[in-house]
Amino acid sequence: MSNLRCHISISADGFVAGPGQSEENPLGERGELLHGWAVSLAAWRAPHAREGGEENASSRIMAETLAGVGAGIMGRNMFGPIGGGDWGDGRWKGWWGDDPPYHNDVYVLTHHPREPAEMEGGTTYHFVTDGIERALERAKESAAGQDVRLWGGADVVNQYLAAGLLDELELHIVPILLGGGARLFEGLGGDVRLEQVRAVEAPGVTHVKYRPG
Amino acid sequence: MSNLRCHISISADGFVAGPGQSEENPLGERGELLHGWAVSLAAWRAPHAREGGEENASSRIMAETLAGVGAGIMGRNMFGPIGGGDWGDGRWKGWWGDDPPYHNDVYVLTHHPREPAEMEGGTTYHFVTDGIERALERAKESAAGQDVRLWGGADVVNQYLAAGLLDELELHIVPILLGGGARLFEGLGGDVRLEQVRAVEAPGVTHVKYRPG
Repeated sequence: MSNLRCHISISADGFVAGPGQSEENPLGERGELLHGWAVSLAAWRAPHAREGGEENASSRIMAETLAGVGAGIMGRNMFGPIGGGDWGDGRWKGWWGDDPPYHNDVYVLTHHPREPAEMEGGTTYHFVTDGIERALERAKESAAGQDVRLWGGADVVNQYLAAGLLDELELHIVPILLGGGARLFEGLGGDVRLEQVRAVEAPGVTHVKYRPG
Repeated sequence: MSNLRCHISISADGFVAGPGQSEENPLGERGELLHGWAVSLAAWRAPHAREGGEENASSRIMAETLAGVGAGIMGRNMFGPIGGGDWGDGRWKGWWGDDPPYHNDVYVLTHHPREPAEMEGGTTYHFVTDGIERALERAKESAAGQDVRLWGGADVVNQYLAAGLLDELELHIVPILLGGGARLFEGLGGDVRLEQVRAVEAPGVTHVKYRPG
């Protein structure tokens, strides 16, 4: 069975990106602090072609997030900074360079049609204009029995939660306050139920996994 | 050394009380769901004069929150529903009946002077009109070397955090979304730093302790 899973770093005050996101600052002000726990890990660095890194209680969590993923979904605002407009000259191909760390099909939710962009290393960006359910269908086809990873950002995760389509939500809760930015769970409420599956203490982060229902 | 400690239940979306708080519904809509993990514990029921209850990984956490506390502080809105006005006929003496579960001096932050209210069982409510720092001074005097417990609500915790006066903040993160209500960390940001001290997994709740700095 193919599940839709989201593993996302979040500040103690509930933001998954800082305020003032821009092309120069895609994670927003201080947003990079959300990811320090991950970037320090050998389990993250190796698949991102970086040397070194440490092992700690987060290592197996990181390995789990990366394992068994056959396709991905992300929002337009996570893919790039090109506001709400069309794709301009079509040269923007994401933040992640010619060889992105996905290595599978990534479905980008957008209102503006665009031809797929085939990258090095097995990543192909597909642009989906007919909604989150169709994106999930196509991603599951690509995943061929493996799971689909929902990368973010907050708005897209909130949409999948509201629609009852998310099977697993793991928060990596980082001890910082961002004071603004992209807020997870915004606009949701009691209609979305969460079951706590697991919590793991690690250096500088707490990993809490929920099963939405 | 006397520390100011806050241990507070919070929804996954960051609220410590639900929307629509009122005299009939002091915790706001669905706010009582924040406290189910605590009320189920023998470690909570015994000091609240209730029988039974269970033991689980939350039991020692609850015992720690209750131990070594010599005085308390709470906000006006936590003490009672009497809006921003004065004390009216002065008959309101908190939500907790004639024998409140505090058993020590509790300092209520308010803009309206009032004589102390001595209750049964060792609880006396003092009404402090000269600010959060003075309330803390007086509470530390009462505590006589033990810690001071900051009970809430969100606004008061946020004020003590902003002022750099809180020594320990433990969140009991409950797997529910409230969608509105009293939001912890509202209006704060990077000026408040948090160090993660500990995280503990327990049935239906994750306890994460921070040291603000």
